[in-house]
Amino acid sequence: MKVTRRFAAVVEYNGTYFHGWQKQLHHNNPTVQAALEAAISKVANHKVDIFCAGRTDTGVHATRQVIHFDSDAARSNYSWLMGVNTNLPDGVALQWVDEVSPEFHARYKARARRYRYLINNSPAKSALQHDQLTWWRYPLDAEKMHQAAQYLLGEHDFSAFRAKDCQAKSPVKTMHRIAVQRWGELIMLELEASAFLYHMVRNIVGVLLPIGEGHQPVEWMQQVLSSQDRNQAGVTAPGQGLYFVGVDYPPQFEVPCDPYGPLLLQPLLEVSGFQRPFVNQQ
Amino acid sequence: MKVTRRFAAVVEYNGTYFHGWQKQLHHNNPTVQAALEAAISKVANHKVDIFCAGRTDTGVHATRQVIHFDSDAARSNYSWLMGVNTNLPDGVALQWVDEVSPEFHARYKARARRYRYLINNSPAKSALQHDQLTWWRYPLDAEKMHQAAQYLLGEHDFSAFRAKDCQAKSPVKTMHRIAVQRWGELIMLELEASAFLYHMVRNIVGVLLPIGEGHQPVEWMQQVLSSQDRNQAGVTAPGQGLYFVGVDYPPQFEVPCDPYGPLLLQPLLEVSGFQRPFVNQQ
Repeated sequence: MKVTRRFAAVVEYNGTYFHGWQKQLHHNNPTVQAALEAAISKVANHKVDIFCAGRTDTGVHATRQVIHFDSDAARSNYSWLMGVNTNLPDGVALQWVDEVSPEFHARYKARARRYRYLINNSPAKSALQHDQLTWWRYPLDAEKMHQAAQYLLGEHDFSAFRAKDCQAKSPVKTMHRIAVQRWGELIMLELEASAFLYHMVRNIVGVLLPIGEGHQPVEWMQQVLSSQDRNQAGVTAPGQGLYFVGVDYPPQFEVPCDPYGPLLLQPLLEVSGFQRPFVNQQ
Repeated sequence: MKVTRRFAAVVEYNGTYFHGWQKQLHHNNPTVQAALEAAISKVANHKVDIFCAGRTDTGVHATRQVIHFDSDAARSNYSWLMGVNTNLPDGVALQWVDEVSPEFHARYKARARRYRYLINNSPAKSALQHDQLTWWRYPLDAEKMHQAAQYLLGEHDFSAFRAKDCQAKSPVKTMHRIAVQRWGELIMLELEASAFLYHMVRNIVGVLLPIGEGHQPVEWMQQVLSSQDRNQAGVTAPGQGLYFVGVDYPPQFEVPCDPYGPLLLQPLLEVSGFQRPFVNQQ
């Protein structure tokens, strides 16, 4: 008798290669979901539907997107990992896969999400990372950006940072952690919240950049937040600097819950003490 | 009266986008040299020939390749930088430019070159850095690789690591520094030498990998080196993990002489103490 089991997987992808996460019904543009469903279905030898922790937009990257799917195929974890990766195009790859409890759901069991946003604050643009960093040539005061960001901690109505076509039921979310740090020419913003509205991180960055440049005072963040008015905020910052780096699940599901990456930055985050577990895991 | 002046520039590029450094006379493949000469000639408004510190092969990256060129165009450093970068394709960008002494020559004044080689030693391949890392899924002992590498320090005949079509006059080079370091899943090899033979770094990595896996003893490196026979060594490791990260010039030329990058790794190299100036600059 075949037994259907539930699997979870961690997925890394380069958003530049895809028109966002969600598969398209009426277009043939490559999407992360479509690529994963095709590769997993091929290895499973039956049609597989996948569910993710948080959909991402065109150009946005992920180091630890989490998905789940159901299958009755008998494969070792190693066979799933290698088989699926062999069938995926460049720019997307599974990092981990394991059977999980049938109760697990990548989206509904997520208690929080973590994003990182990377800025190359240098007079010259990067060639090697041209699609994996936001280039900002004017000097930014990362300390002021950090101070401004702290106004967003806690539960707020984030309507001022919500894109028009956001489908979330409520604009009220809880920001667990937000920090801005500079290392040399690199500036990183990290955010952990219960959930994020459509374009929320990129719209927050759009307010932090003029504050970092000194065109707006630190308190402007507070004004924009309390206005609950998208027209009060700044531009939407580019998606290419944005990484979905982790999802917080209850420990019993045994899905990797340390925010991670991008790979070349991870050792620095650890030795500098910046790397922190999700608030719920502490 | 127009005065011809000499300029030096630091160039970053992603080797995946190009068929190596050198422009091709009989083919139309994109090369780094051809892209740079076209962009610089456009900004200078006259034909410009460029010279580089060290030619790189298809797939090999650079964070601090150094070039020089002559021009009588009156442009500020900022205009050169922004103008040339605007005319370059994705995957190559100037990082710095300045007028230098007419005595400067990117190749003939170089006293040493530094390379870094990055390995993702993980069960799963990287999606975000699939063309900027060498993926090695079997566990590697970085400490053993470091020990083996030390046999290469000093002046040696490096014929065992020299590709067939190498045009260097002599196989005798001096290795100033060689080190292997692991941080998490990332392993980095760094090499500084007076000059490098064709495929020399990739052939050294081809010997270090079986030693790291335990298939060969640490002393195998010594045997291969002293054999002066390319057939004794291993495979040529992939070019996609290799970065040309700096050139050592005498201080009077005032060309940036700190090995650098790749960008996301640079802060770690500094806080961990791994970052070291060229031997001649110490």
